[in-house]
Amino acid sequence: MENTETPVTVIGLGLMGQALAGAFLKAGHPTTVWNRTTSKADRLVAEGARLAPTVADALAASSLAILCVTDYPAVYELLDGSEIDLAGTTLINLTSGSSAQAREAARWAGQRGAHYLDGAIMAIPPAIGTAEAVILHSGPQPDFDAHKPTLDALGTVTYLGADHGLASLYDVAGLAMMWSVLNAWLQGTALLRTAGVDAATYAPFARQIAAGVAEWLPGYAEQIDSGSFPAEVSALETDARAMAHLIEESEAVGVNAELPQLIKAMADRAIAAGHGGEQYPVLIEEFGKPRGA
Amino acid sequence: MENTETPVTVIGLGLMGQALAGAFLKAGHPTTVWNRTTSKADRLVAEGARLAPTVADALAASSLAILCVTDYPAVYELLDGSEIDLAGTTLINLTSGSSAQAREAARWAGQRGAHYLDGAIMAIPPAIGTAEAVILHSGPQPDFDAHKPTLDALGTVTYLGADHGLASLYDVAGLAMMWSVLNAWLQGTALLRTAGVDAATYAPFARQIAAGVAEWLPGYAEQIDSGSFPAEVSALETDARAMAHLIEESEAVGVNAELPQLIKAMADRAIAAGHGGEQYPVLIEEFGKPRGA
Repeated sequence: MENTETPVTVIGLGLMGQALAGAFLKAGHPTTVWNRTTSKADRLVAEGARLAPTVADALAASSLAILCVTDYPAVYELLDGSEIDLAGTTLINLTSGSSAQAREAARWAGQRGAHYLDGAIMAIPPAIGTAEAVILHSGPQPDFDAHKPTLDALGTVTYLGADHGLASLYDVAGLAMMWSVLNAWLQGTALLRTAGVDAATYAPFARQIAAGVAEWLPGYAEQIDSGSFPAEVSALETDARAMAHLIEESEAVGVNAELPQLIKAMADRAIAAGHGGEQYPVLIEEFGKPRGA
Repeated sequence: MENTETPVTVIGLGLMGQALAGAFLKAGHPTTVWNRTTSKADRLVAEGARLAPTVADALAASSLAILCVTDYPAVYELLDGSEIDLAGTTLINLTSGSSAQAREAARWAGQRGAHYLDGAIMAIPPAIGTAEAVILHSGPQPDFDAHKPTLDALGTVTYLGADHGLASLYDVAGLAMMWSVLNAWLQGTALLRTAGVDAATYAPFARQIAAGVAEWLPGYAEQIDSGSFPAEVSALETDARAMAHLIEESEAVGVNAELPQLIKAMADRAIAAGHGGEQYPVLIEEFGKPRGA
């Protein structure tokens, strides 16, 4: 049977790049790969990938190229050679970086006649190719729409908007949520362990609270977008008294109190700024200000 | 129709105490109330409550008494008089306090022949009487079981265990989760606003991440209880590199970086202690150590 799937090139074969190329192969796409250390391509070649001898050759093989390398400087190092023609190629850069680096790379690619989408992978390599792997994309929507049928081989492929920086921003925002849920759970687990409660007993309670509070976010978002924070549920100064309880309890039972202290410090600043009678989302003003060590 | 429901006494008629007494009345319980400022009882008396002239009288009226006052010292101040006989009374203390205060109050009540349960209300006053109001209890299970049919009038009534300190510990642990989810959402909202994304657009993404990570907790709890943290999903040193991205992005776009910095500081300490190749829940060792300003 002739292969009618879209050809695709994957540049960079770390664990993630190998997973991406493997998912394209599995979906039937003629897949060209390149990596500085060619042995990283061995398994993929055995599965039907073509190993290109040079980056220029790899880019010439497909009109769609996925980049997954160490960092943005490595992207420029690989693509900036005089022998490389990017005109008409769509680059999808899944390399980790900042929103500013993504926007700069989009300008750079545009000057060379390439289409450019920036992306971020919210998954570990073994999840690639399953619906569990969420892959965020930002850049011109027509470029995304044109290649979505091919990208669908990688997982749950999501489009965020035209600003190339969005994928990186959503990525770090999502990570902040992930670590915060985990840290709050660890804080609670540490507190409960002092009373002999094991982690398995406490975890379902923490899960229920996290999932329940997650449901409030769309409603609270309306307060932020309207810039009005009436204390419909609770006033910040009432919350601050309960925050003091959390700190005192953490100190009294001898667990780390830094997270509770940061929670209260943010609220105290908003109260000092006159927002004690308003509701929690008014803290967006504190979170939006540059501050930190 | 004769009222066959169990009589109950509510001492302390702040907004929460009023809501508790109102829920008992609505469920048909003969309800006696007491408050230092008697006018706080006016609405409840109009709804059928009996206003007791003294605390001793209020306690004599029912074998079950709910306490909801300012703090634990106020509990002792009200109940320590020579005219007060607590023998055989079940006290359910929903006053905010610490696990140590709860355990001490249980000893104090036991010396006076009272049954004692400590509790914590995870709800705002308007939610009392609905399933949304979660009320945590800890103390001897027979005392809880005996009164659960009456307490059910208040909301979703939960029993945690025999240690009287558990209600307070679960309460502050749950609050830590609540504020952490909200703060992570605010961090993400602040980051996305720098790219012109409004809070309502970002909120569903944050909700999905929070709810998704919540599902990991029972599995991660097994690592803590077994004391073994193999990097099945990701190693802490890999996470730390992404944490650096979160800090750099926050600083670059000019939002608060304190929460990202705390996240990384905790991970860095665990890595310095030799846990870089292990998985995130190994941080329980850092959360379990006394530390803080």
